[in-house]
Amino acid sequence: MENPGVTIDAFAERVRDSFARQGAMTLIGARLETLRPGYCALALTPRPETSQQHGYVHAGILATLVDSAGGYAGYTLFPADSSVLTVEFKLNLLAPAQGDRIVAEGFVVKSGRTLTITRGDVHAERNGERTLVAIMQQTLMVMRDTSDARRDRREASGAAAAPGASTGAADD
Amino acid sequence: MENPGVTIDAFAERVRDSFARQGAMTLIGARLETLRPGYCALALTPRPETSQQHGYVHAGILATLVDSAGGYAGYTLFPADSSVLTVEFKLNLLAPAQGDRIVAEGFVVKSGRTLTITRGDVHAERNGERTLVAIMQQTLMVMRDTSDARRDRREASGAAAAPGASTGAADD
Amino acid sequence: MENPGVTIDAFAERVRDSFARQGAMTLIGARLETLRPGYCALALTPRPETSQQHGYVHAGILATLVDSAGGYAGYTLFPADSSVLTVEFKLNLLAPAQGDRIVAEGFVVKSGRTLTITRGDVHAERNGERTLVAIMQQTLMVMRDTSDARRDRREASGAAAAPGASTGAADD
Amino acid sequence: MENPGVTIDAFAERVRDSFARQGAMTLIGARLETLRPGYCALALTPRPETSQQHGYVHAGILATLVDSAGGYAGYTLFPADSSVLTVEFKLNLLAPAQGDRIVAEGFVVKSGRTLTITRGDVHAERNGERTLVAIMQQTLMVMRDTSDARRDRREASGAAAAPGASTGAADD
Repeated sequence: MENPGVTIDAFAERVRDSFARQGAMTLIGARLETLRPGYCALALTPRPETSQQHGYVHAGILATLVDSAGGYAGYTLFPADSSVLTVEFKLNLLAPAQGDRIVAEGFVVKSGRTLTITRGDVHAERNGERTLVAIMQQTLMVMRDTSDARRDRREASGAAAAPGASTGAADD
Repeated sequence: MENPGVTIDAFAERVRDSFARQGAMTLIGARLETLRPGYCALALTPRPETSQQHGYVHAGILATLVDSAGGYAGYTLFPADSSVLTVEFKLNLLAPAQGDRIVAEGFVVKSGRTLTITRGDVHAERNGERTLVAIMQQTLMVMRDTSDARRDRREASGAAAAPGASTGAADD
Repeated sequence: MENPGVTIDAFAERVRDSFARQGAMTLIGARLETLRPGYCALALTPRPETSQQHGYVHAGILATLVDSAGGYAGYTLFPADSSVLTVEFKLNLLAPAQGDRIVAEGFVVKSGRTLTITRGDVHAERNGERTLVAIMQQTLMVMRDTSDARRDRREASGAAAAPGASTGAADD
Repeated sequence: MENPGVTIDAFAERVRDSFARQGAMTLIGARLETLRPGYCALALTPRPETSQQHGYVHAGILATLVDSAGGYAGYTLFPADSSVLTVEFKLNLLAPAQGDRIVAEGFVVKSGRTLTITRGDVHAERNGERTLVAIMQQTLMVMRDTSDARRDRREASGAAAAPGASTGAADD
């Protein structure tokens, strides 16, 4: 996929800025691994703080990671002066999330003028082996003319450069 | 709804124990507010660490809270010697999650022998006003004969007394 | 809920017109039962043609009915010169759908400027008893300035007055 | 993927039998195109009866087709003496479904002891070109010891050899 209006370097910078501003990404220990047009991979290292009581990563933490991976994947194909909202996502949990590293990938399936649809995969890696632990299907919304310089609109949109943010203010 | 085999006091104790063992519940600052047969309410106070960059609570944090509320709601109707797995959930985001308190409620719609279906609502409260910020629909799985005393099965099931845990080991 | 711009009589007429034009509503035998602002109930009588092999109504037929009920519920709150698209829906199946009558209800949870979120319930009725057989959560999209008189836009939008229609052309 | 207990020929025969018994598959004009372990493709030719008013195939008809494709895909990996239930599915609509042929494919993502998770794609074909019009994510349930010879259990399970049937009786 291509985004004629924005280079991937420009998007990588925007996504990195967004990451740095999101408390929740820091809270769960998410790292930006790979960004290509229509694709994003995020990773985290399981810690006791991301776990339920048996040491597996909590489904909500997986949801946070893969929702953001899908959101940033979609965002790479958006116009320059826009932001991204998560409209909804659905997550199926397939196996316990444990290991050295959890990787969530987001893939754009269709990038539309207003809505973008993605799929997401979450793998757990242990000693070089990968296990598919969750899959996602997601709807994103493009918020046009919502630059970081326009604070009023940015607040209204809820999630400028912040996939996974709760949505809707701009849609009231 | 009623659970003839288990008193609500016994369930409240089991759920409190489960909460105390879950790192992710502590990480996001979740509190157990209300527990009745077929119903659970969890709450958190928004902090910079639970937010995306504009101060709203991140969708993944909302997902963590309401997935757990639904899971514990379902768990109240399960047999005594059992645990609960989240099979899948779907979350729609309706409005920015901001305010003094975020409350996630889980409601059992159908409690079956193997599967339980719930709905969830997430409200943001500010100065006594409530705004519906997200709604959820969820499938849970009953894991029978999975007591806390049987560590091997408990590990295999992934989510003994831990709704929201990643599932599937026992279903391999 | 209220729609200050359009009377319910006007909407009832638009929905009835839409119904009459939809081959699929006729194919499955759907009837428009009730229409209020933010609410719609559709019904059908189970026939061998709507069934899987044991006489229960097929999940796809239930999906067709409740997707349309949600879509028309949302449509009652839309501006006069607009149409409705189904963006996505999620359906949980709870019990076999059998009986004298299947009733699908759609309820608007949030009506936004661009997106509308609904929930749906499907009951099977037999000898006066109702059983909840399926629940739905759905996202709709408002297509503005898409009147029946503008055939080009109507074709492009895919689903003018036709919730449940496949979406997306206008969003390319 | 492999199913050591059942040959694909045996499954193809079971699926064909199931198809022949399902009124809804006949009603919408579905054809069984391809069946491999973990994969199923169904197709239909758009007719006025499967359409909404502008000639596109109705989303509910697409749902019926792809829910069944996913269900039969999962069923190919089930034990011989079992049946399949659809627990839930989620469908995103991407583009208007029009053309000479609609093809729905189901792919098994994980086949578990009790639950099977699938993804589905629906393409519209016109003059040799394919357009992705919908994507699905689905949860199926294995019903063990539910053969066609045991009518009582078959009725209770709701969907013996009938993916897409409304579920739940056996789970009460």
